[in-house]
Amino acid sequence: MTHGKAPTARSTLVITAHAGDFVWRAGGAVALASSRGEKVTIACLTYGERGESARAWREGRKLAEIKEMRRTEAEAAAQVLGAEVRFLDAGDYPLSVTPELTDRLVRIYRDTRPDVVLTHPRDDPYNGDHPAAARMALDARVLAQAVGYPSDGEVIGAPPVFLFEPHQPEMCGFRPEVLLDITPVWDTKRAAMERLATQQHLWEYYTDLGRRRGVQLRRNAGPNLGLPHTTYGEAYMRPYPQVTEVLA
Amino acid sequence: MTHGKAPTARSTLVITAHAGDFVWRAGGAVALASSRGEKVTIACLTYGERGESARAWREGRKLAEIKEMRRTEAEAAAQVLGAEVRFLDAGDYPLSVTPELTDRLVRIYRDTRPDVVLTHPRDDPYNGDHPAAARMALDARVLAQAVGYPSDGEVIGAPPVFLFEPHQPEMCGFRPEVLLDITPVWDTKRAAMERLATQQHLWEYYTDLGRRRGVQLRRNAGPNLGLPHTTYGEAYMRPYPQVTEVLA
Amino acid sequence: MTHGKAPTARSTLVITAHAGDFVWRAGGAVALASSRGEKVTIACLTYGERGESARAWREGRKLAEIKEMRRTEAEAAAQVLGAEVRFLDAGDYPLSVTPELTDRLVRIYRDTRPDVVLTHPRDDPYNGDHPAAARMALDARVLAQAVGYPSDGEVIGAPPVFLFEPHQPEMCGFRPEVLLDITPVWDTKRAAMERLATQQHLWEYYTDLGRRRGVQLRRNAGPNLGLPHTTYGEAYMRPYPQVTEVLA
Amino acid sequence: MTHGKAPTARSTLVITAHAGDFVWRAGGAVALASSRGEKVTIACLTYGERGESARAWREGRKLAEIKEMRRTEAEAAAQVLGAEVRFLDAGDYPLSVTPELTDRLVRIYRDTRPDVVLTHPRDDPYNGDHPAAARMALDARVLAQAVGYPSDGEVIGAPPVFLFEPHQPEMCGFRPEVLLDITPVWDTKRAAMERLATQQHLWEYYTDLGRRRGVQLRRNAGPNLGLPHTTYGEAYMRPYPQVTEVLA
Amino acid sequence: MTHGKAPTARSTLVITAHAGDFVWRAGGAVALASSRGEKVTIACLTYGERGESARAWREGRKLAEIKEMRRTEAEAAAQVLGAEVRFLDAGDYPLSVTPELTDRLVRIYRDTRPDVVLTHPRDDPYNGDHPAAARMALDARVLAQAVGYPSDGEVIGAPPVFLFEPHQPEMCGFRPEVLLDITPVWDTKRAAMERLATQQHLWEYYTDLGRRRGVQLRRNAGPNLGLPHTTYGEAYMRPYPQVTEVLA
Amino acid sequence: MTHGKAPTARSTLVITAHAGDFVWRAGGAVALASSRGEKVTIACLTYGERGESARAWREGRKLAEIKEMRRTEAEAAAQVLGAEVRFLDAGDYPLSVTPELTDRLVRIYRDTRPDVVLTHPRDDPYNGDHPAAARMALDARVLAQAVGYPSDGEVIGAPPVFLFEPHQPEMCGFRPEVLLDITPVWDTKRAAMERLATQQHLWEYYTDLGRRRGVQLRRNAGPNLGLPHTTYGEAYMRPYPQVTEVLA
Repeated sequence: MTHGKAPTARSTLVITAHAGDFVWRAGGAVALASSRGEKVTIACLTYGERGESARAWREGRKLAEIKEMRRTEAEAAAQVLGAEVRFLDAGDYPLSVTPELTDRLVRIYRDTRPDVVLTHPRDDPYNGDHPAAARMALDARVLAQAVGYPSDGEVIGAPPVFLFEPHQPEMCGFRPEVLLDITPVWDTKRAAMERLATQQHLWEYYTDLGRRRGVQLRRNAGPNLGLPHTTYGEAYMRPYPQVTEVLA
Repeated sequence: MTHGKAPTARSTLVITAHAGDFVWRAGGAVALASSRGEKVTIACLTYGERGESARAWREGRKLAEIKEMRRTEAEAAAQVLGAEVRFLDAGDYPLSVTPELTDRLVRIYRDTRPDVVLTHPRDDPYNGDHPAAARMALDARVLAQAVGYPSDGEVIGAPPVFLFEPHQPEMCGFRPEVLLDITPVWDTKRAAMERLATQQHLWEYYTDLGRRRGVQLRRNAGPNLGLPHTTYGEAYMRPYPQVTEVLA
Repeated sequence: MTHGKAPTARSTLVITAHAGDFVWRAGGAVALASSRGEKVTIACLTYGERGESARAWREGRKLAEIKEMRRTEAEAAAQVLGAEVRFLDAGDYPLSVTPELTDRLVRIYRDTRPDVVLTHPRDDPYNGDHPAAARMALDARVLAQAVGYPSDGEVIGAPPVFLFEPHQPEMCGFRPEVLLDITPVWDTKRAAMERLATQQHLWEYYTDLGRRRGVQLRRNAGPNLGLPHTTYGEAYMRPYPQVTEVLA
Repeated sequence: MTHGKAPTARSTLVITAHAGDFVWRAGGAVALASSRGEKVTIACLTYGERGESARAWREGRKLAEIKEMRRTEAEAAAQVLGAEVRFLDAGDYPLSVTPELTDRLVRIYRDTRPDVVLTHPRDDPYNGDHPAAARMALDARVLAQAVGYPSDGEVIGAPPVFLFEPHQPEMCGFRPEVLLDITPVWDTKRAAMERLATQQHLWEYYTDLGRRRGVQLRRNAGPNLGLPHTTYGEAYMRPYPQVTEVLA
Repeated sequence: MTHGKAPTARSTLVITAHAGDFVWRAGGAVALASSRGEKVTIACLTYGERGESARAWREGRKLAEIKEMRRTEAEAAAQVLGAEVRFLDAGDYPLSVTPELTDRLVRIYRDTRPDVVLTHPRDDPYNGDHPAAARMALDARVLAQAVGYPSDGEVIGAPPVFLFEPHQPEMCGFRPEVLLDITPVWDTKRAAMERLATQQHLWEYYTDLGRRRGVQLRRNAGPNLGLPHTTYGEAYMRPYPQVTEVLA
Repeated sequence: MTHGKAPTARSTLVITAHAGDFVWRAGGAVALASSRGEKVTIACLTYGERGESARAWREGRKLAEIKEMRRTEAEAAAQVLGAEVRFLDAGDYPLSVTPELTDRLVRIYRDTRPDVVLTHPRDDPYNGDHPAAARMALDARVLAQAVGYPSDGEVIGAPPVFLFEPHQPEMCGFRPEVLLDITPVWDTKRAAMERLATQQHLWEYYTDLGRRRGVQLRRNAGPNLGLPHTTYGEAYMRPYPQVTEVLA
């Protein structure tokens, strides 16, 4: 949509439940935006200190130590991807939906003024923190648009939202509606994944997934493409309709 | 998707059950593509001679005469929109799904080699011809991709498909997934509608719908848009995932 | 809807796959309409001679004999309920969807001019004949409305449709949307069931069901009701919206 | 359902999130009931002071002033429709689901003893206050039926519930299940809409919608109707089965 | 799944909203497990003192008395079935979802270490306590698996979950996915039902249901079965995939 | 279900659209059954000669030659798995649903008398042959149960049906409901895959899938399992309820 709009640096806001989510699920989108010179802000509601740090707990580490490990790793990964990460430290497992936490997200919306928002799908029978994060991310986006909502900053527009792929898509009602070609930044995404040492068992898993979504992308791509032999992809759903000037 | 592809004129294929469908439901998309210098081909499976020509029947006209009226009107509307229309004259009310008719569509796919395909949604409790057309359009697209399918012409790629809006969207499971900004070609779409004299009662109805989808488009559009005060839109669904290089 | 309409005798059309369906699934609705002096016509597409006459086959009876038995029983049940039954003898197990059979139903629509239509739900994994009957019943209703459809008789309006309850509702996506109070005609429905000697094992089953739907009816009924202690009910779905002058 | 019930004045309870909802979405139903001499009570959970008063905020008005404006307008509209309105002033954007607010609704149920309940649908991705209101309205109805629930007043029966149409029906899973003919009170509904000066931009929008639902009503209405040329309608869903003595 | 596992006594955990639920909905499963020498623990979140004790309230009894009655009955029924019952006394109508109550369930999971979990389906428009219980039961199961969750006891595995049948299955999206043959323990289940004197009106209702699920079980059972003439069944859904070594 | 049944060799029937489907999608189930000494029959409706033999067509081979290649490969794979394969040679791309072909499947049901049936899911937007095969497989199973259906052989019982995993599960509404542990026969499945030389590009793809379903199986498996480090799995859906004597 470009009816006379002045060129401004695009801003992407990623809202996640845990410290690693933005890497596995949206690292390609983040790296692509960053590689185009755009600003990307990641709001991590928790460090994933209880629910996604099993190995550290088994090694006998303490809560504060684990939070510090997850924070350090996530910051390193964000740096590789070219993004800024903000931690809300709201406590995970369970992450609770509250008006206060939703309000903190409204402030981040009004501060970062995103052109694009990424978050979790609204259903996940394996991890209740993910739907909780999604609900607050979507509610806060609506509140941030209201001139009557009492928060610092100017009201925002209605940025499109993309729901990234959960760990077990078929169990979460996830259907790929958008396949993003992340081939040009694949090495960057892989490098970011390797910063997450506490979840090393997922490196190959998400490399495989990237390759499979790439195959699906090729199968669904229009004709006359000069796609390289190996293509990497990420899948997304749209909770709101796409607005476009061209069908393609 | 632009990995080194050679610039070629884009081709759009619209497959409809009846002679008027391409105007009411996709006239904006057709006019936009045409205004960009692209080729648009409309495959009308029937003239809508029985199911959508009630006034003519009440005036006592005969079948051949009605088909001729609908054909003349549709050709005039297509000319306004800048598209070519082909009539398959398969007989409406009911339109039956057959391998022979599907095969005729395969030939049209291989002949027109579309970059984009538009057709009806797969469900409509008010008009069984629409789902029948959709099913043949989608089946033929898959068959046309197979090197083993015995038909003239080269196999095609996997062009994206857009399902246009039915007359009663809520009753057909239709949810707007893509909102196309047709403001720049609105006058052209309106002029094409006015070529369909036998369905004059629909002119205002679809003008209203265009305006409402335009309002929804503004509500869902990203921030910082310089959209004009009155925006016109058309709504579409995607049966296959979108393939993209940028989330927007 | 009574804006100045002239009083005419209401007509109900019931379209079923097999000879017994109208008794088990809609016998109460038929008896109620009949008791109000209305006309009820039952179009049985088949006798259920292959798929629902297991005992007769096990007893060594022949096809023609079984069809005769089922016809005689169904006519007796229809007489008890006060309805006329017409057999199309299209052959069951499987009942196939064809344009010819659909056309025969169009003629019956134009002949009986129903104010209300009853038929099967559109899904049933235990008996493919039921969805086939539903599809032809719904398609024929739309065709009979079209002035351009070549069949005897005048075009009809858009009578409301009610889908009656299948044998295994949860497996067919059936959700009670309308609960009909059949208490005043319960004895008539039971008497009609007892005319179906070849399916005696179902008498108690459908008596239980009538009682359970009656309990649910009481639970959902508005306040201040003077309902009798034992209430009998039948459940229906609506594929089209209800049109009304009062919400109740 | 009239088995021997004594004639009493019917009572309708409308539960909405914001001050304007009962006019746009159910003004016809309210005016119809009132015109039949029935009692209608509207429970507004909030004034819509933050989420639906954008113009007033942009004009620099204060919270208390905006609430007063919305209250005055809503009372004027309710008077036109012939209904009583009660404000719970629970605070909007966000409206939170709490046991205390639900309990206040239980008291209103037991006080007004409704024969019919109207509220929002259970899903709305554009406004989280609407599903919150719906959830409390439906929960309170169940609690008010329980003799063991500690609240003033007698337990109520199980009044039928109608969910009125949201602003963007396709995005909220809304499918018209009931079309109410509001032609006789259309002028009253339009007059009530015109009392809502702060939302003047919606007057034409909801006039158009009334006309479109009227067209759909005619298309779905049974035969032999003497409907006037222009018909106005409102659409509703039923979360519970309809209980009836006649299929129509 | 028997890859070298040491034989240990299996443990079943049943989590219900009210004191009677485990008898009506899962009494057969409980009795079967108990008859095999397995341990069954029932966690009743409330006594059902407000929402499911209408007769006692009408007889003028007090809250404490009703809770005592329900407790005594439930303990007697559990004894018949061979199970232990634990009451959390969290208060019903409404039962609220809270982190504190969820945490109490986590402790019970880690204490009982279940091989199988039974609870309510996630939707019920007639009783909000049931979905609230289901949500806490499912959330607590996930939390109890996390080594980082701070609660006594060892982390548990991922026991399969079965959702038992609600009172009005079609209205709750309930589809039988598992039919359990409870014929061998039917008399025990009936005896347990008869311990619930305050809900005597349900004895025959659930006897009928057991018989109907038994008929459906026979209809879906594989060939070559030597099933007795009268079979009793209970229906369940699986929210997670079944894990198996053989398809049967 | 073992109420006194005499031990007989179990029989499995696999009905597929194309020659390779039984290997990729159900090779583990076939090999497991065979390894237990059971009989497995595969009914291939077509050779997949047009739709799934792209490389052969590009190499310039003729129809008869391609069918012969596919047949030879499939027979070799079936031999590795220990199954018998029958080819119906009905012609693919498109495979049409006909009463004649359905009748041929009825004969195979009555001849093989399966205890378990495996086939495709009912929806697949990428390949219309798969839903066509599924529909005929499910219809024929119902017809084969009817004593009145005129075909050789005795009527069959109601064997459970498992729908195997499609190539793009999220696009076909596929949700894993059953995870089969195929670790003990993984080498056999891999060997069978390697017999399908014309589809060599799928070997690694389905090896990866087997590993991923194995990971999911471990995550969903009950506690106390002695599962090996690497587990392989296959996913299935159940269109009919499971019948069981124990919840596990």
